[in-house]
Amino acid sequence: MAETKNKLLMIGAKHVHQKGFNNAGLQEILKEANVPKGSFYFYFKSKEEFGLEIIDVFLSFFEKEVGGDLSDKSISGLNRIRNFLRTSMKGLEDGNYAGGCPIGNLSLEMGDLNENFRVKLSQAFSNMESKLLDSLKDAQSAGEISQSIDIGTVAGFILNSWEGALVRVKAEKSSRPMEILEEILFTKILIN
Amino acid sequence: MAETKNKLLMIGAKHVHQKGFNNAGLQEILKEANVPKGSFYFYFKSKEEFGLEIIDVFLSFFEKEVGGDLSDKSISGLNRIRNFLRTSMKGLEDGNYAGGCPIGNLSLEMGDLNENFRVKLSQAFSNMESKLLDSLKDAQSAGEISQSIDIGTVAGFILNSWEGALVRVKAEKSSRPMEILEEILFTKILIN
Repeated sequence: MAETKNKLLMIGAKHVHQKGFNNAGLQEILKEANVPKGSFYFYFKSKEEFGLEIIDVFLSFFEKEVGGDLSDKSISGLNRIRNFLRTSMKGLEDGNYAGGCPIGNLSLEMGDLNENFRVKLSQAFSNMESKLLDSLKDAQSAGEISQSIDIGTVAGFILNSWEGALVRVKAEKSSRPMEILEEILFTKILIN
Repeated sequence: MAETKNKLLMIGAKHVHQKGFNNAGLQEILKEANVPKGSFYFYFKSKEEFGLEIIDVFLSFFEKEVGGDLSDKSISGLNRIRNFLRTSMKGLEDGNYAGGCPIGNLSLEMGDLNENFRVKLSQAFSNMESKLLDSLKDAQSAGEISQSIDIGTVAGFILNSWEGALVRVKAEKSSRPMEILEEILFTKILIN
């Protein structure tokens, strides 16, 4: 049943986000999901295939939750980016700065170890970047930011620097890296 | 002998950089070092203590190699920062974009799992940031960058965004995230 598969993916995503892919135990996940090992292998050929589908769960979570602000066309492009930064900062504060971005975490953990993971994570980043680019396009069309800004470059820069702020947040357990990111973006880069 | 301890740390650092801390096998490290398990426990109380000392190895590598440019006082502050970015990009290219920054990697892997690691990684970041701050101070004193730049904030921003570029490099296996970082820093932020 799709319900069992979905339950495995949700619980798996939680474990991978908390502990990383290699450190997440299949036994523990199956126990929490109350699903026997045989059923797991009915849905997934391997732990690797399970992990690759978990990346889809993470991307979907970004699109609907953390990065959902970026798709809210009722709000101006520039404010969508600001809301995205604030929503992600609020999420970190509410979660005591644990977790961070699972796509970034998995990239550092798996980027050199598994080419299937790497390709899928690279695609997930492109998808996330395209949401930022859409907001920057709208900001530029509406005259919120200068026409001279190369929004393709800036979209990548914002995503990468956001990932970097999350690396530092995970070590500092403080919002400061996110605050610095917002300050620099809105006073030096996203200007008119 | 200090030599044996040092050999264990060097080989351990290589394994942790390649595979992460949890995924690095003590057996494999001991085999490569040709050191019996008993000797390991003469030098280190546990794998955790070994890992904490490996963070010192990584920081020392940053100070002497990757970030060595930042301490070269014969060069202007602004050029030290540019050299640092270029040296790290060259290192990534030479290594086929594998590895990245071990301090950043360990922060994402261990930041939520082990408080001793987290504190030590946070200190390592502060140390790295202070090298950037020194370069920014010299750049500001020499009039290379505007007096109005808040160099404390910018030092943190550069380090965090550099870490973020490395996250993306690991997924993309391309220098593009590092090129974008240099472009934005030197055209939007480090200006006069």
